[in-house]
Amino acid sequence: MNNKLEVLDTTLRDGAQAEGISFSKEDKLQIMRLLDGFGITFIEGGSPASSPKDAEFFALAAQTELQSSSLVAFGSTAHPDSDAFSSASLKAVADAGTKYVCIYGKASASQVTEVLKTTAENNLKIIADTVKYFIENGKEVIFDAEHFFDGYAENPEYSLKCLETAFMSGARRLVLCDTNGANLPDYVKSATQTAVTSFPDAVIGIHCHNDLGMAVACTVSAVQGGAKHIQGTFLGLGERCGNANLSTLIPTLQLKMGYSLIPPEKMHMLYPVAKAVAEISNLTVPSYFPFIGSGAFAHKAGTHADAVVKNSSTFEFISPDTVGNKRRILLSDMAGRTAVLNKIHNLYPDIAKESKQARSILAALKEAENNGYQFEGADASFIILTQKCLGIYRPFFKLINFKVINEQPPVAGAAALAVIKIQVGSTLATANGEGNGPVHALDIALRQALKSFYPQIESISLIDYKVRVINGEAATAAKVRVLITSSDGAETWTTVGVSSDVVEASWIALCDSVEYKLSKNNIQENAVWQ
Amino acid sequence: MNNKLEVLDTTLRDGAQAEGISFSKEDKLQIMRLLDGFGITFIEGGSPASSPKDAEFFALAAQTELQSSSLVAFGSTAHPDSDAFSSASLKAVADAGTKYVCIYGKASASQVTEVLKTTAENNLKIIADTVKYFIENGKEVIFDAEHFFDGYAENPEYSLKCLETAFMSGARRLVLCDTNGANLPDYVKSATQTAVTSFPDAVIGIHCHNDLGMAVACTVSAVQGGAKHIQGTFLGLGERCGNANLSTLIPTLQLKMGYSLIPPEKMHMLYPVAKAVAEISNLTVPSYFPFIGSGAFAHKAGTHADAVVKNSSTFEFISPDTVGNKRRILLSDMAGRTAVLNKIHNLYPDIAKESKQARSILAALKEAENNGYQFEGADASFIILTQKCLGIYRPFFKLINFKVINEQPPVAGAAALAVIKIQVGSTLATANGEGNGPVHALDIALRQALKSFYPQIESISLIDYKVRVINGEAATAAKVRVLITSSDGAETWTTVGVSSDVVEASWIALCDSVEYKLSKNNIQENAVWQ
Repeated sequence: MNNKLEVLDTTLRDGAQAEGISFSKEDKLQIMRLLDGFGITFIEGGSPASSPKDAEFFALAAQTELQSSSLVAFGSTAHPDSDAFSSASLKAVADAGTKYVCIYGKASASQVTEVLKTTAENNLKIIADTVKYFIENGKEVIFDAEHFFDGYAENPEYSLKCLETAFMSGARRLVLCDTNGANLPDYVKSATQTAVTSFPDAVIGIHCHNDLGMAVACTVSAVQGGAKHIQGTFLGLGERCGNANLSTLIPTLQLKMGYSLIPPEKMHMLYPVAKAVAEISNLTVPSYFPFIGSGAFAHKAGTHADAVVKNSSTFEFISPDTVGNKRRILLSDMAGRTAVLNKIHNLYPDIAKESKQARSILAALKEAENNGYQFEGADASFIILTQKCLGIYRPFFKLINFKVINEQPPVAGAAALAVIKIQVGSTLATANGEGNGPVHALDIALRQALKSFYPQIESISLIDYKVRVINGEAATAAKVRVLITSSDGAETWTTVGVSSDVVEASWIALCDSVEYKLSKNNIQENAVWQ
Repeated sequence: MNNKLEVLDTTLRDGAQAEGISFSKEDKLQIMRLLDGFGITFIEGGSPASSPKDAEFFALAAQTELQSSSLVAFGSTAHPDSDAFSSASLKAVADAGTKYVCIYGKASASQVTEVLKTTAENNLKIIADTVKYFIENGKEVIFDAEHFFDGYAENPEYSLKCLETAFMSGARRLVLCDTNGANLPDYVKSATQTAVTSFPDAVIGIHCHNDLGMAVACTVSAVQGGAKHIQGTFLGLGERCGNANLSTLIPTLQLKMGYSLIPPEKMHMLYPVAKAVAEISNLTVPSYFPFIGSGAFAHKAGTHADAVVKNSSTFEFISPDTVGNKRRILLSDMAGRTAVLNKIHNLYPDIAKESKQARSILAALKEAENNGYQFEGADASFIILTQKCLGIYRPFFKLINFKVINEQPPVAGAAALAVIKIQVGSTLATANGEGNGPVHALDIALRQALKSFYPQIESISLIDYKVRVINGEAATAAKVRVLITSSDGAETWTTVGVSSDVVEASWIALCDSVEYKLSKNNIQENAVWQ
């Protein structure tokens, strides 16, 4: 059995239709390189005919040599009233300079008459002429049969005729599209089987949308029905409810079902590639995403966490490493002592499960959670909390006071000015800082004040800053949770602060970050906090 | 054909396992009432044996009379070494006072030996004794067969024996669980068919997890295989990648597939119930969620937006009203003039598509987007932007300057103090405000300064405040986007501000909110901005 499947990623085209997504040319180039490095067969780069930005992207992309992937330009069949062979739109797609083009055409009789406002016969003519135009221009054509599944349900002969026309005109790949995303897996499978049987010499592909939450399942069904080419977006991005999510499909089809999509030695890059694509898209990967979410291998409930420590296969069907992700035991009041103790065991191996210290950590954790803290993503703050409970916390400085002045219009450039007074041992120190905003100014002032006492803090850089409103309905008096991620080059850590004042919440997280760095010598080497 | 399906919602139990979720008793009562109002058959309220908070919840819930739903207490089979009839855990579940209990027991031979560490025979005994204990105590028992699908694949006889034991002991509902969430729809269907055939007098149920992104599809497959009882959580919340999402399953099974789950006249409550459950869970419904996401019926691309205006069935398989959601045409540089003009047509019907004004609005929109603005959720700010482009913007006040002082430790309670000077006409006014944080203080000062000029601003209340870090990697110097939602009782509107200073970003959004309220008379009545 030939178990090879082609993968076409359309993050840069269909993914760009998602709400809130706006890729620059540089974003697109970066994502293209990531997908190429991961071994994706085809990368659909955009619609050069409808977007000048996409045309510029293809011009830039032509200067990059890809290792594994072929770039694909996307366009539609010629306008019903125009001649394909002299169409400026088709020429723009051809001019993108890619070997492959993906052309969508209507494959539903009712869509042709009601939306395209032309005849069934003329639609077949423009499919034929459009495909021929690209074949004559030396392209390989992927034909996306828009509305295929809805059309096939209404008038199967016509939908198959559209495929046949594209195939006879030279398109070797015929992609069945569930454009409205509202078909069920069993129907997708049977309709795909018909197409596979009808066109034994074509590569049948599948393109699903997620309006019933089943784009992944429909794609899997189509593959079970004989499709050999799958389309989707890396994070499931796409218009409305998104496209089939390739970060779920690739490991499912390859690891679970035995198909071959990417080189096996690249599978562990799934998680870092997904994180990078999300970063460039200015998104956070939702924690619950299969395989790539931070929660995909996280265990919270006491009994589950116990079982997974005994035997990981009890609640994990693959090892998280396989896709580059990690197992996490979450801290929360539901986790029970076992999970909390598993976490701190790396740091303080001597604390017994029934000890006063263990109870004290659990109580402090619970109280902090009641106040809006979440330590699930802020391990460094949790370490400081445990140090305080264990009586081994050493304060490295004491705040006497700070004032931050924010001003509009800004005076000579800077909007915010902070002044701070701290005490280290018996020495008082003052410093000031100027910044874009209050937190930035305070961050600078604190480092300034500390650096003569603790020169090692100069190696800290803050690499991420997040603000989450906890009770938004309190509006500008709402409580916020601030997460700060810091790095000293060797290690990255995250701290958390909560307050109804964003400056105070940030201050708490900033202090924890500095304290964590300074207290690192107190903690055993190699104590990985996962 | 009997097309009735029972729905068990386990948001309050399995959903509470999700990362970041922590329900108070009051949260649980609120969610229970929402689900009851929507017509859910069973509401699983928690695990009274393992959580004292859950036991308190059941005591409180007993005081509420439910209209449509039955409350269910959840627990496990008795400990392998204990006697079910004298187990404190089982007694705690019985004491919750519900008519129905849901009991999970292992239905996988390897899980019994490797995790439960007991014999296959003893596991059957504790299933039997546990079920009998609850039957003797007058309960109806729902038996959740943990790891059924993985167990059935390894040793089908034993997994079916577990079901048989529960059934013979009195459990009328046998729920097949895909505990690890890694099974495929076609296998789930065939294994379910076997269970349905083997136990014709039982109600066979299905409980799926989403580790392959197919929990919804697997649940649908099980129903196609004969299951009559589905379990899931309203927003798909749950451990790891979550549980089957009921907000997707209910409309799919009922509207698309013809089953009967809830009273048809309640289907339009799907969207508001989902929003409310999300609000109580302190979550935002992701825009791409089927049926309930703000993007589920949103159209961005020019051609799609055009087509949907011509004929909504082209890209929508149901009308958004059916589930209480709305169609939206999104603003973005990809939308093209048509979509933008559709939006502003309600406000200014005279602007022609090819006019200078239209081009000016598009250009301003694009520039703002380049600076980090997103108007997709901030219609009021977009209205002000259009007014500026059309030359009909009337500034209601001018900022001369403000200063905000933030201080730690706070002096006499308040952390922040704002002073502001504004000009209205030729009159200068100053005011000050004290608040929890800088934005709160500034908000109060601005209202104070404006109220003698514009008494109508006293009716504005700010009902939501969101902060989104745009480029988190710039850490404390990062740009933030602030969204403020305001209400005057009659209408709710959202405004946006962007800056690297959270105070300035908030100030921009605050000003837009006030300006929008004051300029409302300039806008035609009934101009709904969707």
